[in-house]
Amino acid sequence: MLGAGVVGGSLIRRLVEEHAAIEAKTGLDLELRRVAVRDIAKARAAAVDAALITVDAAQVVDDPSVELVVEVMGGLDPAGEMVLRALRAGKPVVTANKALLAERGPELFSAAEEAGVPLLFEAAVGGGIPIIRPLSETLAGEQVTRVIGIVNGTTNFMLTQMAEHGASYGDVLAEAQRLGFAEADPTADVGGGDAAAKAAILASLAFGTWAGIDNVYHEGIDKLTAADMKWAAELGYTIKLLAIAERLEDGVSVRVYPAMLPVSHPLASIRGATNAIFIEGPSVDELLFAGPGAGGEPTATAVLGDVIDAAREILAGAQVAPRIRLAPGELVEFEDVATKWYVRLEVDDQPGVLAQVAGAFGNHDVSIKSVLQEGRGDDATLMIVTHLAAERQQQAAKNEIAALPKVRSVASVVRVESPDV
Amino acid sequence: MLGAGVVGGSLIRRLVEEHAAIEAKTGLDLELRRVAVRDIAKARAAAVDAALITVDAAQVVDDPSVELVVEVMGGLDPAGEMVLRALRAGKPVVTANKALLAERGPELFSAAEEAGVPLLFEAAVGGGIPIIRPLSETLAGEQVTRVIGIVNGTTNFMLTQMAEHGASYGDVLAEAQRLGFAEADPTADVGGGDAAAKAAILASLAFGTWAGIDNVYHEGIDKLTAADMKWAAELGYTIKLLAIAERLEDGVSVRVYPAMLPVSHPLASIRGATNAIFIEGPSVDELLFAGPGAGGEPTATAVLGDVIDAAREILAGAQVAPRIRLAPGELVEFEDVATKWYVRLEVDDQPGVLAQVAGAFGNHDVSIKSVLQEGRGDDATLMIVTHLAAERQQQAAKNEIAALPKVRSVASVVRVESPDV
Repeated sequence: MLGAGVVGGSLIRRLVEEHAAIEAKTGLDLELRRVAVRDIAKARAAAVDAALITVDAAQVVDDPSVELVVEVMGGLDPAGEMVLRALRAGKPVVTANKALLAERGPELFSAAEEAGVPLLFEAAVGGGIPIIRPLSETLAGEQVTRVIGIVNGTTNFMLTQMAEHGASYGDVLAEAQRLGFAEADPTADVGGGDAAAKAAILASLAFGTWAGIDNVYHEGIDKLTAADMKWAAELGYTIKLLAIAERLEDGVSVRVYPAMLPVSHPLASIRGATNAIFIEGPSVDELLFAGPGAGGEPTATAVLGDVIDAAREILAGAQVAPRIRLAPGELVEFEDVATKWYVRLEVDDQPGVLAQVAGAFGNHDVSIKSVLQEGRGDDATLMIVTHLAAERQQQAAKNEIAALPKVRSVASVVRVESPDV
Repeated sequence: MLGAGVVGGSLIRRLVEEHAAIEAKTGLDLELRRVAVRDIAKARAAAVDAALITVDAAQVVDDPSVELVVEVMGGLDPAGEMVLRALRAGKPVVTANKALLAERGPELFSAAEEAGVPLLFEAAVGGGIPIIRPLSETLAGEQVTRVIGIVNGTTNFMLTQMAEHGASYGDVLAEAQRLGFAEADPTADVGGGDAAAKAAILASLAFGTWAGIDNVYHEGIDKLTAADMKWAAELGYTIKLLAIAERLEDGVSVRVYPAMLPVSHPLASIRGATNAIFIEGPSVDELLFAGPGAGGEPTATAVLGDVIDAAREILAGAQVAPRIRLAPGELVEFEDVATKWYVRLEVDDQPGVLAQVAGAFGNHDVSIKSVLQEGRGDDATLMIVTHLAAERQQQAAKNEIAALPKVRSVASVVRVESPDV
């Protein structure tokens, strides 16, 4: 094992306490041979046998008695080098490291294929929810069209609090940090980067197309306000941070942004730190997977399932064919993707303002689905939901609108995911 | 392939039409070598190459060019013999036949283990929902405590119609038959036998304990009335046919019956022919899987996923370790299982009747959670929900109540699945 933090600690406890139960269920005698940790004192406190502990990850990987490497240290470095080193030595690797996979996936999958050993990563997306294996194996014969999900528990907890208690973004972030849901530096969660890494992995499994983290458009929840949540509710929507991997006519689109969902949508009712993922295809229609998206115990269950799988393959003694095949595939630029927008404008409450705004949308071939105007003295708030149009058109319309003299500000832009237009 | 009916027909079409897409995604060149059908004329109409068709299933199994057998003919005989024959010849088998597995599972799994070839059956439970592989592989390291689900689409369609339109059991059965959801002989669906076979399979995967279809207590929906649905709704419940596999203190319980669920329970909102399965465990808490539980196309996707998996194993050339390990395990008799009951009684509207009924429950140590009495002239309807008590106590109380002179009839008994007591 590389790492003995929250997930690693749970896994070590399970390997010890549930050793007999696992053996009864699977026939496997799993033995912890060596653990690399950053802080020896902490690892000892976690009741790991002192003789097994080292601070040198390479010692674990190179130990000839180690047949299988579990990477739960996180981060890109040295995790990436250690995973490669293990694979090249013919040792199967189980990892929960979505950031590493999203950054260096093709290189790592190639190394696994060359060595003929499994590289398993069920824990990298959806925590304890089985999603990687269903997508890559059970649905291998389905021409999946779209994967759409709530894959970041921290932001879903925050959005749930904002929606249900009218709290501000700053307050719910502070609460999430106090409760341990959000890190001291929350950027990866609230900025959408964590969800983007997961979206890239889901896309590669669903379509065999490697997006790479740099090609995933992502927008976080950090610009959302209590007013956005309130207006969304009044219009019959809930705002969720969505990861979307979709096969479009010209290729695959992978993107992450906060979006309005009709309250009747099954994802709209996913509360708190729960994750949920929809898989859509012509034959299976819609499949829903939901459960705890993070946390040491659920994630350790996913890692342990992979460990058992890899151990079975070691015993079977076979050269392992790769379960993920990356084929060259076109990626669609985000600005070519058709989306629906909700736009909230602060405007002067004067005749003609709506005509000007509507004209700007029309100039860029964006058609309007609904308009709601709320007056307040000299000011008014204008809320517009558009029909589908390419992002570049929506953006151009927005820029034109922002420059209109009677428009004080474009207060908010949130995309709308709704099957009804 | 053995069988070319609804599922088989979809699979044949996919193998032909999606051959290139499957090869691009998986690297596998899947070729249909031979198809056994009951009715040659029908198979020809389904555009199967005439040279591949036979009415003799053994010819398919014995064909030396056949490397993998897909059994979608259904029924126990000759499906069982054909599956055994294929396994003993060292050919992997993919089957969607839950009845066969529930009847002869241990024998078939042993044959697969001896031959070192896979016997895969993702399509046997939950149609297109990936549930077998997640339960047997991804969750291999979880000490699952309970699996509870809606696993029969026909009855869920019927119950949804009854609940939403106040229709009678007879009317919705006729409608389900007209729409092709229910067979001419609907016994397996409405009597709970189909769900019981699936429950037995889920229990074996979750706990390694083989229940066998004869040990699964099952009750169908055929005694439910419009009045039951109406009263359930008034009390805040929905009635669903549930398959439950549970690890209790003294062993494993596997059972199927219609049960009242609080309307807030996620399974209560599963409508129509959709299936949904909850898996509960100490680490993963609750996982939900939902999707189309039947139908040719979704089921063919599950079969195709297994075919791809088995083909990969053939190419890897390994002896396959069994994924399902059956260990001797205690089964708990249904009469020892603690359940909650909803009982509807038609009684004389006279003083003292409630005291007598309550006394009868008390005589058998069944405590009452709530009582609702509705008068109508000389008659009254008494609805009682009990706390948890062993089935034998509930049954004994019911028998005593049925014999009370002021009780005209025990109109209905429905179990209650609610975490709130």
